Amino acid sequence: MKANRAHPGCAELVGDAIRKAVAACGLPPDVFSLIQGANHDLNLRLVKHPHTRAAGFTGSLKGGRALFDAAAARPDPIPVYAEMGSVNPLFVLPGALRERGEAIAEGLKGSVTMGNGQFCTKPGVVMAFDDPAFDKFTEKLKGLMTQQAPGTLLHPGILKSYEEGLKSFGALSSVVAKSSTAPDRVKTQAEAAVFETEAATFLKEPRLREEVFGPATLLVRCGTRDELEKAARAMEGHLTATVHGTDADLREFAALISILEERVGRIVYNGFPTGVEVCASMNHGGPWPATTDGKFTSVGTGAILRFVRPISYQNLPDAALPQELRNKNVQKIWRLVDNKLTQDDLT
Amino acid sequence: MKANRAHPGCAELVGDAIRKAVAACGLPPDVFSLIQGANHDLNLRLVKHPHTRAAGFTGSLKGGRALFDAAAARPDPIPVYAEMGSVNPLFVLPGALRERGEAIAEGLKGSVTMGNGQFCTKPGVVMAFDDPAFDKFTEKLKGLMTQQAPGTLLHPGILKSYEEGLKSFGALSSVVAKSSTAPDRVKTQAEAAVFETEAATFLKEPRLREEVFGPATLLVRCGTRDELEKAARAMEGHLTATVHGTDADLREFAALISILEERVGRIVYNGFPTGVEVCASMNHGGPWPATTDGKFTSVGTGAILRFVRPISYQNLPDAALPQELRNKNVQKIWRLVDNKLTQDDLT
Repeated sequence: MKANRAHPGCAELVGDAIRKAVAACGLPPDVFSLIQGANHDLNLRLVKHPHTRAAGFTGSLKGGRALFDAAAARPDPIPVYAEMGSVNPLFVLPGALRERGEAIAEGLKGSVTMGNGQFCTKPGVVMAFDDPAFDKFTEKLKGLMTQQAPGTLLHPGILKSYEEGLKSFGALSSVVAKSSTAPDRVKTQAEAAVFETEAATFLKEPRLREEVFGPATLLVRCGTRDELEKAARAMEGHLTATVHGTDADLREFAALISILEERVGRIVYNGFPTGVEVCASMNHGGPWPATTDGKFTSVGTGAILRFVRPISYQNLPDAALPQELRNKNVQKIWRLVDNKLTQDDLT
Repeated sequence: MKANRAHPGCAELVGDAIRKAVAACGLPPDVFSLIQGANHDLNLRLVKHPHTRAAGFTGSLKGGRALFDAAAARPDPIPVYAEMGSVNPLFVLPGALRERGEAIAEGLKGSVTMGNGQFCTKPGVVMAFDDPAFDKFTEKLKGLMTQQAPGTLLHPGILKSYEEGLKSFGALSSVVAKSSTAPDRVKTQAEAAVFETEAATFLKEPRLREEVFGPATLLVRCGTRDELEKAARAMEGHLTATVHGTDADLREFAALISILEERVGRIVYNGFPTGVEVCASMNHGGPWPATTDGKFTSVGTGAILRFVRPISYQNLPDAALPQELRNKNVQKIWRLVDNKLTQDDLT
């Protein structure tokens, strides 16, 4: 584990917890090492080391790409599972907007500002149709975001990128609302912000389709279903997409779901994407550039699949097999035997 | 599908079969295309095309590496599943060598010359202990290989590489036997060949640990268990490893199995690695340089996992879900529901 240079102390606390878990499980202590350092070159050297067999990473596209490229250029390439950013588009379909636009605005504000907007699943783009209900929704969101107190970001580098993001979004779209309290820069505070643009501008300006890491989101006002689908198609790979709708909305916008299936790892309906549950059905991953490998999740029971590979044992006697493959199924695990799933012993 | 330039006609026959299968399954005809061409650049262009999402390849390390590098350098990297060669070491442990050395020699001859040695799982290195039983085994193999008639290789390029392989192995080790009939070069024929060396030479000469594609194999005479384990550790990633032994051998050489688990995708006991069955337990893959991604098999039901990725559907109503995830389990597939595997409908 290479500690984030902005949080050496926090990394030591996490490292201690892992070391205790290693001891409690009776594993050799050297299965875990924590390395501290402020030099990016250290990450590259870890990925290039001949003994390294795989790497996981969370951070910027630039950082993830550098590690991916170094791993791919090795004499023996290794996988780098990098999670590199995600805009997490959220769609408010017409029926839902009319029925409960204000409630959605409240939920959205909570999701955008949760952890001061530093969740990788923060909804960074909200698409809906130009409609009186959209104006009411925007008005509600504006009130909530204005009241939102500035919050402390993880480190000054993130604050700097966030402020650059606000500037570039401000130049390309309209500011709907900002925290009414001024942020305290000494405390690395960031103001919450909502921007708005038309679908045509969103389609024209690639920067508006990129992530701003922090408590900001962009509303995209669409004129027609065709325009909304085009805007959805213009999105790259993301961790999540969220749809707010009614049953009638879902029938009318079935094509939108198909578009999203090609672009994201998790589709959330009538909810918010922030917060992930550690369970078998969680997929915290998505197509490039959300991650370097959309076939794997970094959260949930499936996450271990990044670091294992299959082996066939052909014709080995029972005693030479791993316990899980022996005739007696001691742990009563599910096994596929002659194409039938079973927990039984073999005879 | 990019046809092998050495077999345009064969590729057309395969293409016709696939087109018929596509029609029989009611799929759109454009899901399959066959491209002919003799230029390597065509492969690279296919892998670099923005619409290409993944690629599979079988061929040389040089060819596979070129495709892998091109795919990794894309603005949006894609996976290349390349199978690039494998030496498939075979170990004859002392008890088995004494009990049935001649039978193993017969099986080995069949496996080395099957398809004129052009199976990717052909055993290219055979390790055993210096022992009178090894001399008898070698004598038997020598007789069989001498009688082996030269066979036609897939194309002249393969014959050329094979003859270069024979030359380099001949320079580094001793020739035990060759086909007594001279090969007909006009018919692209290759003679079968067996070489022999000591473990010390095998460890010193990396070329002897590389694949010779064609009907040749190398016997490695080991002095001690330590030497045999060192030779096994010196091997890179392979598709398979094979062990011939008795129950007592397996107990004595448990460490060898552990060494092989780190290096191959399939461990065969008291059999031969040539021939793969299309089934759920097949793993036709292995660590670099056998393949570019040892996490996947290219044969068997698991092979489809190379070309799919997971999506979570969170909170979607039944009607908007794919059929496989709806409450009614129409196809009675196994599903994990609240951490329990079940074929039941949900209520």
